[in-house]
Amino acid sequence: MNKDLRIVFVLFPRITQLDFTGPHEVLWRAPDARCVLASSAGGRIQADGGLAFDTVPIADVDGCELLLVPGGYGTLDAMADAHLLAQMRRLAAGARHVVSVCTGSLLLGAAGLLRGHRAACHWAWRELLAAYPEVTPDAARIVHDGRVWSGGGVTAGIDVALAVLADVAGAEYAQSVQLAIEYAPAPPFDAGRPESAPAGVRQRMQQRLQAMGADRRAAVQRAAAALAAAG
Amino acid sequence: MNKDLRIVFVLFPRITQLDFTGPHEVLWRAPDARCVLASSAGGRIQADGGLAFDTVPIADVDGCELLLVPGGYGTLDAMADAHLLAQMRRLAAGARHVVSVCTGSLLLGAAGLLRGHRAACHWAWRELLAAYPEVTPDAARIVHDGRVWSGGGVTAGIDVALAVLADVAGAEYAQSVQLAIEYAPAPPFDAGRPESAPAGVRQRMQQRLQAMGADRRAAVQRAAAALAAAG
Repeated sequence: MNKDLRIVFVLFPRITQLDFTGPHEVLWRAPDARCVLASSAGGRIQADGGLAFDTVPIADVDGCELLLVPGGYGTLDAMADAHLLAQMRRLAAGARHVVSVCTGSLLLGAAGLLRGHRAACHWAWRELLAAYPEVTPDAARIVHDGRVWSGGGVTAGIDVALAVLADVAGAEYAQSVQLAIEYAPAPPFDAGRPESAPAGVRQRMQQRLQAMGADRRAAVQRAAAALAAAG
Repeated sequence: MNKDLRIVFVLFPRITQLDFTGPHEVLWRAPDARCVLASSAGGRIQADGGLAFDTVPIADVDGCELLLVPGGYGTLDAMADAHLLAQMRRLAAGARHVVSVCTGSLLLGAAGLLRGHRAACHWAWRELLAAYPEVTPDAARIVHDGRVWSGGGVTAGIDVALAVLADVAGAEYAQSVQLAIEYAPAPPFDAGRPESAPAGVRQRMQQRLQAMGADRRAAVQRAAAALAAAG
């Protein structure tokens, strides 16, 4: 019997690396974890910021118990990659946990994997989830709905990974990993949510996001339409 | 005039990847940041957990404004790499910020870069810092002492990186990055410090660490002796 916990991280160009490196640091420590980085065609994937990661073609991955989909600006292009979406559906069909971090939930949605589910997303992109049929955006940092787990923006990946690890290996095991990575966060500022950030900081970020707002909406609408056309 | 903010991340085998991928996600967003991954001989560096990173030989790096040294189990071997330590000293001589995360402070100490300084470290390794002459272990999560900044274990790298970014680019800029990466952490458990972890979790981890305690102490004592011999 195969008792490995096979974990597949779905990568794509212009990923936000911390969306998956955070959860990776938590989840590789799970009992019998076997982590694989996969992408649409395999090969070297470049993250925003310059780090690069080698991946295998996702079609070469037999199956997994846990599928994790991070986010980043590249999500918009990845949502139009029909091959990637089909492979995500194939792997998700056999997975016990389907997890997204940040805008990775938009990619899960494009693959049709969120139908009937609530999901988290980066705060600035969250409402876009509502473009998918029967998907409910949820403002919580960790959202658990059936076998689908999702986290808010970027750093929420560490939180959601610990919650998933507790589900996989028990709360005490997850706590031992939390202690090992000394995860007692103490941000020097309280600016991590739009509700708590200084007004000027929030407004300038919203202006920058507004400039790309039409592109973002169009990408999600195209993905939602493709999903509807596929039935 | 060169106004780039050149940031060098010092990597070595068996690094804990989140020690530097967390700060990297924060610091590449600094104005005019130019990030370089460097290691003793260059080439592919394997982190514990399986991720790998391509690096340049540290001797090929001209200089930098910010030197960041992460930690991990590989610190023990890196502390005996005289070439790496000499190159760290060379780069630190021209740097405005010298930063460590987790057991990276043991490596800074081995390079003689902590003399006269307080420094943070992973909670389970912190007291080893006292083996170095004129180095004071500090239990704070973020320690700022002159141009030396240090963070506690693994995830503290995100906190210390935001504090360094505020020093480099201003508090408001750092807050905008905190908002972009939605850093409003909400761990599902309160087990990230030995003081808060359940007793059973803490005791089992201390037992595991005790098993390698002699090796750890010996490695630090060798590094301290080499430092004293070099004057």
